[in-house]
Amino acid sequence: MGKKRVMVPAEDVDLSAVKYHHEAIQAPHLTGLKFKLFVKLLETPLVGPLIISRLKKDNKIVELLQNTVIPEAPMYKPEYPPQEPEPGVVVVDEDGKPEDRVELAVNCLPPYNPASCWNEDLASPFRYWKIRDYAHAYRSQFVTPSMVAEKIISVIEEFNKKDPPTPLLISFDAEEVRKQAAASTKRFEEGSPISILDGIFIAIKDDIDLYPHPSKGGTTWMHEVRPMKEDAVSVSRLRCCGVIFVGKANMHEFGMGTTGNNPNYGTTRNPHALDRYTGGSSSGPAAIVASGLCSAALGTDGGGSIRIPSSLCGVVGLKTTYGRTNIRGSLYDYGTVAVIGPIASSVEDVMLVYAAILGSNPADRISLNPSPPCLPNLSSCDGADALGSLRLGKYTAWFNDVQSTDVSDTCEDMLNLLSKTHGCEMVEIVIPEMQEMRTSHLLSIGSEFIQSLNPDIEDGKGVRLNYDSRTSVALFRSFNASDYIAAQCLRRRLMYHHMEIFKKVDVIVTPTTGMTAPKIPSGALSYGETNLQVTGYLMRFVVAANLLGFPAISIPVGYDKQGLPIGLQLISRPWGEATLLRLASAVEIPHD
Amino acid sequence: MGKKRVMVPAEDVDLSAVKYHHEAIQAPHLTGLKFKLFVKLLETPLVGPLIISRLKKDNKIVELLQNTVIPEAPMYKPEYPPQEPEPGVVVVDEDGKPEDRVELAVNCLPPYNPASCWNEDLASPFRYWKIRDYAHAYRSQFVTPSMVAEKIISVIEEFNKKDPPTPLLISFDAEEVRKQAAASTKRFEEGSPISILDGIFIAIKDDIDLYPHPSKGGTTWMHEVRPMKEDAVSVSRLRCCGVIFVGKANMHEFGMGTTGNNPNYGTTRNPHALDRYTGGSSSGPAAIVASGLCSAALGTDGGGSIRIPSSLCGVVGLKTTYGRTNIRGSLYDYGTVAVIGPIASSVEDVMLVYAAILGSNPADRISLNPSPPCLPNLSSCDGADALGSLRLGKYTAWFNDVQSTDVSDTCEDMLNLLSKTHGCEMVEIVIPEMQEMRTSHLLSIGSEFIQSLNPDIEDGKGVRLNYDSRTSVALFRSFNASDYIAAQCLRRRLMYHHMEIFKKVDVIVTPTTGMTAPKIPSGALSYGETNLQVTGYLMRFVVAANLLGFPAISIPVGYDKQGLPIGLQLISRPWGEATLLRLASAVEIPHD
Repeated sequence: MGKKRVMVPAEDVDLSAVKYHHEAIQAPHLTGLKFKLFVKLLETPLVGPLIISRLKKDNKIVELLQNTVIPEAPMYKPEYPPQEPEPGVVVVDEDGKPEDRVELAVNCLPPYNPASCWNEDLASPFRYWKIRDYAHAYRSQFVTPSMVAEKIISVIEEFNKKDPPTPLLISFDAEEVRKQAAASTKRFEEGSPISILDGIFIAIKDDIDLYPHPSKGGTTWMHEVRPMKEDAVSVSRLRCCGVIFVGKANMHEFGMGTTGNNPNYGTTRNPHALDRYTGGSSSGPAAIVASGLCSAALGTDGGGSIRIPSSLCGVVGLKTTYGRTNIRGSLYDYGTVAVIGPIASSVEDVMLVYAAILGSNPADRISLNPSPPCLPNLSSCDGADALGSLRLGKYTAWFNDVQSTDVSDTCEDMLNLLSKTHGCEMVEIVIPEMQEMRTSHLLSIGSEFIQSLNPDIEDGKGVRLNYDSRTSVALFRSFNASDYIAAQCLRRRLMYHHMEIFKKVDVIVTPTTGMTAPKIPSGALSYGETNLQVTGYLMRFVVAANLLGFPAISIPVGYDKQGLPIGLQLISRPWGEATLLRLASAVEIPHD
Repeated sequence: MGKKRVMVPAEDVDLSAVKYHHEAIQAPHLTGLKFKLFVKLLETPLVGPLIISRLKKDNKIVELLQNTVIPEAPMYKPEYPPQEPEPGVVVVDEDGKPEDRVELAVNCLPPYNPASCWNEDLASPFRYWKIRDYAHAYRSQFVTPSMVAEKIISVIEEFNKKDPPTPLLISFDAEEVRKQAAASTKRFEEGSPISILDGIFIAIKDDIDLYPHPSKGGTTWMHEVRPMKEDAVSVSRLRCCGVIFVGKANMHEFGMGTTGNNPNYGTTRNPHALDRYTGGSSSGPAAIVASGLCSAALGTDGGGSIRIPSSLCGVVGLKTTYGRTNIRGSLYDYGTVAVIGPIASSVEDVMLVYAAILGSNPADRISLNPSPPCLPNLSSCDGADALGSLRLGKYTAWFNDVQSTDVSDTCEDMLNLLSKTHGCEMVEIVIPEMQEMRTSHLLSIGSEFIQSLNPDIEDGKGVRLNYDSRTSVALFRSFNASDYIAAQCLRRRLMYHHMEIFKKVDVIVTPTTGMTAPKIPSGALSYGETNLQVTGYLMRFVVAANLLGFPAISIPVGYDKQGLPIGLQLISRPWGEATLLRLASAVEIPHD
């Protein structure tokens, strides 16, 4: 029993009275045996539910969802009014051929200048090869896809032999890679490559179907219970373009974690510091791109899972608008928060892969009304106007709520530079109801996860999950139907607040994560760990884009004092990927 | 723990192998002290959850929702592809003035012939005055709204004095009615009535806001905790047309029952047999229309609550398409199954009231994409073609699953007559997954109900509910978030099955209820009762229209051997109200 609270309607919230509250999480950091014991306790009848019940009370979940009258209707999936077209963009046919979209995307890029890459840069420090560098090299016959394949295969095999294991890929077949590379090489020899993506090496997160690899989602058993006969839609679009798939990239089990810790296969290490996490859940995708092995990877992002590891590994990660890509053929086909998106070392590579995979599921169009997809025209001078007119919204109290000021200062410096160089206007904003946002997101992703997994858990597979997944399962199973619906009412409020902000600004800017890559505790490799403080810092800025479906991108903008990458996050209006890509490519310039 | 089941995709279901199963409900019929004790047990910690858990297992709820892999995505609200325009209809402006829509509706009706009503019929047995009869009488100055008001007031006061109480209205203010009637009378005296609905007496179900009456939803306390300052949207539309509101009609507490039993205010009696239930939950609205006191009433229908009492009381009840009317200002503002709709004694009166109240909530249009609302043009001969081309789908095994063959035979006779007279084609159909449909509906309506009520229950108001509401609360609170989501996956399957049927037929025909009005057990007046067998018969045919949002109408088609009314239900495609009204008006003709 609890005292009834009544929220005022979202439109009556007094923004001038909103105060930012640092999220205070009170929970022990557990690893090893202690963690195992805790999980056993959680799963004990009567005792477990009591602990969970206490946990939910302490975190105000009950108060927010059961004791509160929320005057809004539930919003079960993001609902957007029709959006204004973005300036300076090219509209793309989402039902056309992927290779045509990729060609259009190439035409949107500034002209490729081989000289800048192939002469002076040879002497410069490490620099990622971009997709157009490979394309140029293949077309100039400096190198063939088969030659690249051999290099990649040897490095991956080396990673797989490490002790303890730190795999980038958890399903890998050298012969399969060689076969794809040979086919691509042949196309170049015949002078008929399919697209700019022909011969480009891409890794696929283990929760997205890549035929004939099993889709385990980082577990040991998912492929045994889930039949899979073909590529996911986004994968098949890349395959149409001639992409070479290296295999299935490592991930946090079921995507239910932010570090990338995976006791089943070993924990992928951060290429910038091997004793540190990559971030998750798309640990393998971010690391394989950051290590320079693959031009790009596909990840999924239901709670920052593309952006967090992109930020921690110093690469670019795009979380697309909910419904912009077709998520069919992933392990989260039917959730309301997760999307598929690309990770690459540069904004232009993200844009090329995005152009290939975009296209909503026709079944979703009834309820989602997606705007036509667009790409920014970066090849003409018109773009400068489009860039200069952008208003960037910053909620300073939130922006600065990070573990070290290195993170906020570096992001802020970049924004100041952006203002100065391009004339973007900085606007101070206020975002109310942050705790409601986190709660609504937790209820949504957790409930949808349990629903999809229930038949297998009930069938006895739950005990084969990692301890941290089992912690999540115990919590998520305690959510009531009414909690879920109340969370959707909160979602409508948060949508209102954000759409009001998007009347005043075009993009919301934040650090991507509240900390740089955390160290892997020595006791955490065998059984995982629970560290909600770290989770809090890593997820601080990401969930709005998941709960509300907005597109968001993480771009590397510098390093902290320990040399660890720092990411800046840009969040735009629904269907505003073109704006994000334009702005992100401007942010990126000073790095070249 | 349970064995995992895997459903085939909805499109792969083999319809030729589908067998109809009579819904076997095993539960005791409880009234009086036994019922009170049972509810106390249900609310006892540990014991209550065990009983509920057993009940859910026995009714396969756990098996269907937790152990089953459902290959479809959740459908949280009805989603429809764009619908073909209906033939022979007039499109109505849903954003225009209600009185303009009503005028258009009048023009769609066959010409009014006063002679048929005012001469011969005076000698005929009881016949309801239609809205156009009142309108003619007012305009001919035979009678004034104030004169009618006095008649109605005296009858209502008589009903309110009965012992035990059997009120039609539970909020009634004679002076308020006189005031409205005087204003209308004055308009007629001045020769400026607002519309054909001016001076027409209408009752509003107690769960729809009618200012300044309290909205109690049949409870004793809801008005204490829910502030209300204005008419519901549909009520204000009627008020614009000059309607006179007689007050708030009785109902089953919170609409959570099918009989209309209400220990708080007394149980409304069936005008056709005073020892019998009216059906519910819109008991008062159906009874006040059936007794001839009001031309029409507004009800709500989340699980047959308009159609069941309309059927049992021998009147016409229209459940509109989900989203067609604006439900703002009712107690179920935000559910996914309930709608507001009219009850009247004739199809033409239902159509006039429907024309006034229709118009979707602009906030819903983003996700619902409603087709423009239409009315059937019944004034021209073109209608005969539109009628003759209709294909009526009948699932015979389901159609015949009724308590007495009187019900199915009477409905069947009417359909045969319709075929013979108008050339409508009868088509045998099969509807798979009926149990899944009932389960999905129960989970949806129950979870949404609890969510809206939770803050008050947690605040201690639960103990002030009736015993049957408390039974529902105990059950509904046990639903998990994942159960709710799984139910929405089932909803998408059922939508698929029905939309496939609607490729072959225009209208699905069933009896409205599987039985005629049940007797009120002597022990059920003080504390209510639980009788799931009766609930099963009353709800047998109604839930598809709620779960999937389809419009459906109940029309009286005859009487059983005891002289109790029998209703025929017509269910059409989404937004197909015009087709329903056309067909219903043809069904009705033989009664005149």
